[in-house]
Amino acid sequence: MAGKVFFSVSMSLDGFVAPESMEGFLATPEQREQDPRLEFWMRQWMELQAWIFPQRFFRENLNLGEGGEEGLDNDIARQAFERTGSSIMGKRMFEGGELAWPEEAPFHTPVFVLTHKQRDPWERPGGTTFHFVNDGIHSALDQARAAAGERDVRIAGGGETILQYLNAGLVDEFSIALSPVLFGAGTRLFDGVDAAKVALEPVRSEPSSRATHLTYAVRPR
Amino acid sequence: MAGKVFFSVSMSLDGFVAPESMEGFLATPEQREQDPRLEFWMRQWMELQAWIFPQRFFRENLNLGEGGEEGLDNDIARQAFERTGSSIMGKRMFEGGELAWPEEAPFHTPVFVLTHKQRDPWERPGGTTFHFVNDGIHSALDQARAAAGERDVRIAGGGETILQYLNAGLVDEFSIALSPVLFGAGTRLFDGVDAAKVALEPVRSEPSSRATHLTYAVRPR
Repeated sequence: MAGKVFFSVSMSLDGFVAPESMEGFLATPEQREQDPRLEFWMRQWMELQAWIFPQRFFRENLNLGEGGEEGLDNDIARQAFERTGSSIMGKRMFEGGELAWPEEAPFHTPVFVLTHKQRDPWERPGGTTFHFVNDGIHSALDQARAAAGERDVRIAGGGETILQYLNAGLVDEFSIALSPVLFGAGTRLFDGVDAAKVALEPVRSEPSSRATHLTYAVRPR
Repeated sequence: MAGKVFFSVSMSLDGFVAPESMEGFLATPEQREQDPRLEFWMRQWMELQAWIFPQRFFRENLNLGEGGEEGLDNDIARQAFERTGSSIMGKRMFEGGELAWPEEAPFHTPVFVLTHKQRDPWERPGGTTFHFVNDGIHSALDQARAAAGERDVRIAGGGETILQYLNAGLVDEFSIALSPVLFGAGTRLFDGVDAAKVALEPVRSEPSSRATHLTYAVRPR
């Protein structure tokens, strides 16, 4: 039996999955250190993701050492990882991650990158191989499904890539860790959603002290 | 002891508290009947508020008759009403409601309307009296606090009025009934929020089968 197609992201209460783009105010390392917007950007990012950093699974998966919290937040982070047989991501998420991920990238499965660049598969230690797909979201999904086997395909991000799959009717369900923070600006997860076509069915709503974990199934209207 | 200042609204998962404005496509009754956008608007509005219509409290408060659901959704609707000693609302919410509320308006307390129009207090059967305030949000809040006594002041809406009070640091806490629907367009609750000044502290997160009820305390940064 084929798995599901899902996404799982952290979202601010006002609907953002990333703070305002840093493009344009981070041209040089000196500018980075001096620009107060960076501190604001970092604080927003940390508050958005605050629920996951202390978790045992997060520490394990990034080889940050022993310990960490266990409980609902940890279980949810671990389950999102364990159900995933392959991931799909947009070009910009990949390019940012290429700079930021440790050598042992945290996916440990095949990852299909939507891009116009042609590039040979890039194999990382620990089981992550990035495949570069030049012929669109359906092709990437076909390849990701084949690679995932019976496990699920995760649309990893960013927001635009998630929305492309959602509006195309290709997402079965999704989870949001709703964080107690307001951004005011940034990348909105659902900006441009085709509300005339996408209906939601609540599956679970699980509060922790750090976030409210919401799961919805997607239904056509 | 003075009460708290709060708001309590239903919000779509993508952050909207009202569908796209109908202004401009509802000029005449004939246009209303023929314009397919009205059906879409009504469906969005009904889905946003779907959690409250079946509740016993809602039926009681609008004199719709006996019966109705009891449980978490009903308790939450009733508590929001019972804690409220007075309300504040913007001009547009009042003008819409003036046409739509039954003669026995559903507030049953003093209501302070922010407006530039001068008008004598308007007393309705059932205990609601609308007072028209011409000198700003602080004056309206002073009057609403005095009228509320030991009970709380509710910023009833619309979204712009709520945001004025939130950005002015005058809101103590708020509740959101997060409904399982995506709007794509409309009035965003937090559009223009001053994220550099407003911090949130999670108070409660209570899921029902119809909505997720979120409560946050507002803290200055």
